[in-house]
Amino acid sequence: METNALYAAIDAHLETNISELAAMVAVPSVAAQPDAPMQAGAELVAALLEKRGLTARILPTVPGAPPVVFAENRDAGVDAPTVLFYNHYDVQPAEPLEAWDGDPWTLKRDGDLLIGRGVSDDKGHISCRLLALDAIKETNNGVLPFNVKMLVEGEEEVASVHLPDWIAAHSALLNADVTIWEFGGVDTNGRPEIICGLRGIAYFELHAKTIAYDAHSGVGGSVLPNAAWRLVWALSTLKTRGERILLPGHYDAVLPPTDADIELLASLPAEQEAFMRREFAPLNGFLGDAQGVEYQRRAVFEPTCTINGIESGYTGAGAKTVLPATAFAKVDFRLVPDQDPEIVHQSLRQHLDANGFPDIEIRYLGGQKPGRVDPNHAYVKLAADTARDVYGKEPCIVPMVGGSGPIYPFVAGLRQPMVTCGVGYPGARVHAPGENLRVSDLVMGARHTARFLLALCDSYGKE
Amino acid sequence: METNALYAAIDAHLETNISELAAMVAVPSVAAQPDAPMQAGAELVAALLEKRGLTARILPTVPGAPPVVFAENRDAGVDAPTVLFYNHYDVQPAEPLEAWDGDPWTLKRDGDLLIGRGVSDDKGHISCRLLALDAIKETNNGVLPFNVKMLVEGEEEVASVHLPDWIAAHSALLNADVTIWEFGGVDTNGRPEIICGLRGIAYFELHAKTIAYDAHSGVGGSVLPNAAWRLVWALSTLKTRGERILLPGHYDAVLPPTDADIELLASLPAEQEAFMRREFAPLNGFLGDAQGVEYQRRAVFEPTCTINGIESGYTGAGAKTVLPATAFAKVDFRLVPDQDPEIVHQSLRQHLDANGFPDIEIRYLGGQKPGRVDPNHAYVKLAADTARDVYGKEPCIVPMVGGSGPIYPFVAGLRQPMVTCGVGYPGARVHAPGENLRVSDLVMGARHTARFLLALCDSYGKE
Repeated sequence: METNALYAAIDAHLETNISELAAMVAVPSVAAQPDAPMQAGAELVAALLEKRGLTARILPTVPGAPPVVFAENRDAGVDAPTVLFYNHYDVQPAEPLEAWDGDPWTLKRDGDLLIGRGVSDDKGHISCRLLALDAIKETNNGVLPFNVKMLVEGEEEVASVHLPDWIAAHSALLNADVTIWEFGGVDTNGRPEIICGLRGIAYFELHAKTIAYDAHSGVGGSVLPNAAWRLVWALSTLKTRGERILLPGHYDAVLPPTDADIELLASLPAEQEAFMRREFAPLNGFLGDAQGVEYQRRAVFEPTCTINGIESGYTGAGAKTVLPATAFAKVDFRLVPDQDPEIVHQSLRQHLDANGFPDIEIRYLGGQKPGRVDPNHAYVKLAADTARDVYGKEPCIVPMVGGSGPIYPFVAGLRQPMVTCGVGYPGARVHAPGENLRVSDLVMGARHTARFLLALCDSYGKE
Repeated sequence: METNALYAAIDAHLETNISELAAMVAVPSVAAQPDAPMQAGAELVAALLEKRGLTARILPTVPGAPPVVFAENRDAGVDAPTVLFYNHYDVQPAEPLEAWDGDPWTLKRDGDLLIGRGVSDDKGHISCRLLALDAIKETNNGVLPFNVKMLVEGEEEVASVHLPDWIAAHSALLNADVTIWEFGGVDTNGRPEIICGLRGIAYFELHAKTIAYDAHSGVGGSVLPNAAWRLVWALSTLKTRGERILLPGHYDAVLPPTDADIELLASLPAEQEAFMRREFAPLNGFLGDAQGVEYQRRAVFEPTCTINGIESGYTGAGAKTVLPATAFAKVDFRLVPDQDPEIVHQSLRQHLDANGFPDIEIRYLGGQKPGRVDPNHAYVKLAADTARDVYGKEPCIVPMVGGSGPIYPFVAGLRQPMVTCGVGYPGARVHAPGENLRVSDLVMGARHTARFLLALCDSYGKE
């Protein structure tokens, strides 16, 4: 049987792909850090794609920024479907390093677990795609029955700052029937998830500077303005303790979820909520005591404002009596349709000015618009049908997730539907110490990816 | 003439004392840092005191804490006055290191300037006392005409946490006619200052922990409590933007300055205010737009609440989308008579609980009560009279300063008057990068110290 042969081929190529994944993890391609080896990360991915018979190019976005890897194979011709894979070779910083059990840049194998920075987000997904292509070629006389385009960017973890412009400038190159998104996988029950939307984001640094240099807190405490206090007071005006964001007009463009969205949320398993509660043990429970459908709604359809980091003054051991001259915080706003990060940037400035903080400098590190695909789209259904068959469980159609990504230039800019399949699971600790991937998920993700691609070929032109 | 001989002797011993100061600066005796070489700092000071013929002992306070150096010479007998010098061999941390022009632990000489951590606060003051003793001995047949007790502690920069108990347990050992305080010097006009009071302090760390480990800000931003937000909101309740501290009853014990205090403040030169404005270039001027006597009053007779440092989450380069599990801040409260740090500790807990922050953990790093000597005391007058003669300028009698120190156990515990003389000046950058001492101030401070001691002998028993 064809499926058995396909799965056998995945098994046969598994160890080679894990070795290649180890090589990718070994490149600390942290887009947030200026001296990270981004070029090396791009070159390794390009080489792995060339090895599969794709023609790979490393293309610049803007000078000095991590390049884009673009690879393609149009051998299947105009009568076959064309699929665009979107992935990224950059990763989050590994800090705090001491919280890892070992070196985050050395892939560690522990039973079914592969551990290392980027092993799930997103190098494991690149491996998943490569493994699927390997297996399809092996069971199809060495050729792919569809055209492949593969876009692997290097700035996903820094809000894909240059990708929307690059996509707009290369839309003809990227034309395809469907985009396979960079993530996917299973929930706490092992049910496959098909993700239909991503929130947007606007990421800022806020900087306060009040005096020429740090002062003694005794002499200065009574008379000199304190940058840490300025920043704390400014931040405290951004959001109520009830989580209501206070920027002017911040909720004006928010589209509430439809009845169909709420129905999909209601059909999602309750175990995700229980997992989050158990894993993170949140103080006094979830924000707003949210539960059930309200938890699901709040988790994805509400805008957020998160302090990602803050620093000022002396933070070493013991008591240093200093009055800080400077302070800064990193803050992200998650956006829901149809909020716009550029408008958030403007209203943040207006808000700080209106609240007496014209001195707080805003540095806009990047933003992304939210975006969605219709949960009823035929390719979403195809992804769900193949997932049901591969995993043997009813897939979850997720109308929106809490995270962000450069979905807008694909679904709105290229006007292409997107579907998800992949190797993630809720214990993967993405962005955190101990990031991991289950080998069994890598196998299942490759099966689903391959089965979706083959089903796409079967259905192509019959719609 | 005797004074000429004294001053010539100071000049003769100057270079040796600067070399000894360089040796003291080379010991990074940062009391705030657990692995600092505090014992080495104590031993070096003890050796320098022994070299002057004092009997020095290194005495413990509590196990593991930096020891106290106590040295004495009672050769002058019961008919001569006894003077207690209070100094400290510990220093502030040197961070941020990159803000120094060179190694902060290598004494750098640049014309009249000596630069290095602790060169003014307080190792330069130890040198000033040693230089004065050297000169008096040389011009008095090798003997001191007064009894000396010298207490050099190692925890002044961490709020002298163990000193009050140690003083209480050694009050007989410390009995003296007057305490010469660890600092002093000139103002922006070169006028000598005689300081009569110090504010108290209560130093805390506030810690927030909301979830088990850092979460992704996308997944977590809507539903998980954020430690940085908790801390920012908690801090924002401590003080209004108008600098009013909101702890319950915080101003109840505050004694306003007397009319005599205000008169002394009014007689202080306006140039100090101008210096602070020029040096620190405060954003929008001083807090509360204070000027003149109101500036002087506010600078020393108002309680303060200063954020010394704050840290949470990711503070490296670029955009990391993390939701922090933990956050902490360092906060000091400066206290005026008759506020009490233990009561501030209690009311801080009450305040956080009452404002919905029972989860914010308070770590009390230490406190000191405020204290004063009567500005009309005979020895204050003697210090002023000798200063007038040495500096050739009218001294400033300063009723209170903004900084803190362990004054309370001396003036209230030992019931001894205190006077100040020293080597400081407003550009010394104490506690900041670039801490410096003018060689000319070292000479003048030693002259004043010696002249006060000799005048004390002359007046002794004649009162």
